[in-house]
Amino acid sequence: MEVIGILTFTLKEMEKRKFVLVIHGGVGTILPRNMTIEKEKAYRDVLIRALSVGERILKNGKTAVEAVEAAIVVLENIPLFNAGRGSVFTYEGENEMDASIMDGLTLNAGAVAGVKRIKNPITAARKVMENSPHVMLIGKGAEKFAKKENLRLEKPSYFYSEERYQQLMLARENNEVILDHSGENKSTDKEIENNDKKLGTVGAVALDRHGNLAAATSTGGMTNKRYGRVGDTPIIGAGTYAKNNTCAVSGTGHGEYFLRNVVAYDISALIEYKGKSLKEAVDFVIHKKLKGQNGEAGVIALDKKGNYEMTFNTEGMYRGIVSDIEPARAEIFK
Amino acid sequence: MEVIGILTFTLKEMEKRKFVLVIHGGVGTILPRNMTIEKEKAYRDVLIRALSVGERILKNGKTAVEAVEAAIVVLENIPLFNAGRGSVFTYEGENEMDASIMDGLTLNAGAVAGVKRIKNPITAARKVMENSPHVMLIGKGAEKFAKKENLRLEKPSYFYSEERYQQLMLARENNEVILDHSGENKSTDKEIENNDKKLGTVGAVALDRHGNLAAATSTGGMTNKRYGRVGDTPIIGAGTYAKNNTCAVSGTGHGEYFLRNVVAYDISALIEYKGKSLKEAVDFVIHKKLKGQNGEAGVIALDKKGNYEMTFNTEGMYRGIVSDIEPARAEIFK
Repeated sequence: MEVIGILTFTLKEMEKRKFVLVIHGGVGTILPRNMTIEKEKAYRDVLIRALSVGERILKNGKTAVEAVEAAIVVLENIPLFNAGRGSVFTYEGENEMDASIMDGLTLNAGAVAGVKRIKNPITAARKVMENSPHVMLIGKGAEKFAKKENLRLEKPSYFYSEERYQQLMLARENNEVILDHSGENKSTDKEIENNDKKLGTVGAVALDRHGNLAAATSTGGMTNKRYGRVGDTPIIGAGTYAKNNTCAVSGTGHGEYFLRNVVAYDISALIEYKGKSLKEAVDFVIHKKLKGQNGEAGVIALDKKGNYEMTFNTEGMYRGIVSDIEPARAEIFK
Repeated sequence: MEVIGILTFTLKEMEKRKFVLVIHGGVGTILPRNMTIEKEKAYRDVLIRALSVGERILKNGKTAVEAVEAAIVVLENIPLFNAGRGSVFTYEGENEMDASIMDGLTLNAGAVAGVKRIKNPITAARKVMENSPHVMLIGKGAEKFAKKENLRLEKPSYFYSEERYQQLMLARENNEVILDHSGENKSTDKEIENNDKKLGTVGAVALDRHGNLAAATSTGGMTNKRYGRVGDTPIIGAGTYAKNNTCAVSGTGHGEYFLRNVVAYDISALIEYKGKSLKEAVDFVIHKKLKGQNGEAGVIALDKKGNYEMTFNTEGMYRGIVSDIEPARAEIFK
């Protein structure tokens, strides 16, 4: 597809065209008082790094799909965020990861859920989209597919971090399920300190110079989760959605609320069917609908004109943006 | 909730109120010339039985959620349809089942995917909705949860049928994946005969006398499927959706198209945001959007006024309807 796009205009024309990349690293009770200078710098640095990797791709006229995948791979490969390497532990002491990706041009989509060994679940999701007739593969089957596609599988030790393990022990003691940064209000001091080290689901939305949108999301789930729980991240329409003539959306927060409210597609439908602007649609869903249900939530959203939103109803959201006219910028607090 | 509902009006008043139950048993190339009188009777009989079980529940003022679950349990318990007992075999010679349910009053929802041993996946989905904080559980975790809820698990032999096994062997020979009744056009004579014995996903939508809607869907997936493929059936918004002020929807057909188009929620959004009638919304999605993408599809849909649709873009759909004013009726062909 991008080849056709590239051929329709010269390199010079292309350089005049817009591109935008927006990323997030989860929402929650992220407060300046719980953040050291070093920690804040570490988060900002990696957000900027992910933006820069995506920017290079978009600047060169490559696709939005490539950019969102590449940005998420950066976030999956460092232990700071709850995705890929930094995934939290389930009740059983394992990592179960989910990811999805969608191409706004073709409406093609791919997702994996409940995978334990795939180094980059977002790449597996893209392979499902591009190299299979399916949209969603789960569990061991998804891992078999990833292996066939020559994706890198890792041993459990790759995903192990002492910090994540301590989080599990703490959650087990308190017999609670922790997702992203939620539940931190009811926490003890020790937990606040601890939960503050947890980091959420990661996501990206992009507009490329061919005018195409893409969205992608990746997560390590909830600390201490049981029973093969799957949230909104691998669900097309809930955690991820992209359609050129409406918008690209990636969500983070309390997944069950995203599932019941079909959040990502709802934002698209409000634009398509009700004539809302991107901002109106996002504000309605995050601040009115989900807030009204006490659903902690954040989304990044982007339309084909390059309008973008980074909206959340919590204390903070790790987020960043870069475009042809805006240098890479990372934000954390409100 | 239903207790409050019951208390707000007397039994006599309740008896005047509407109820409707619509069910389906899958779409595909279902042609009269491939159907014997005995076969047709067997399908009609079981559809009528499922309708009667649901009717009794709704007549007595019980909830739409109870009715859709009970109707689907009837269809899961006989080997005729591709759900529960009659589930088809995966590439590995196993059964992997998916199901979901949604309550239009509360927007609560539950789903299971990739379960191999649960006798009634739809009941497991309801337990997820009512007895867990989650919406979706997959694989072994979902089975652990079902066990904890005292649901009946069965050995693989319960789900074994010689007919389904022969379908797998045939699909393996032809190295193809068969879903519902699709792909029958390209089939050999032997396959036509064989595929004609396959039966699709089952689903139900109901309006109860309290004015509440519910939707539910259950499937055994695709013959010869690999890699833990999951279709639209367990995905809230794709295969199943219910919201009192719009509609209840259950879908069947080529699941990947339902996933990419977020079909069930799309119908709801067209009503809510674009002011379409139920019929207009359903016709647009099935005959225009999905037909335009060559997506074989059917849905049953119902609104709070009792308007219902049974719409498909294939040769046939196993379906039936009963209400306070219409006796139970089953249909198969166009």
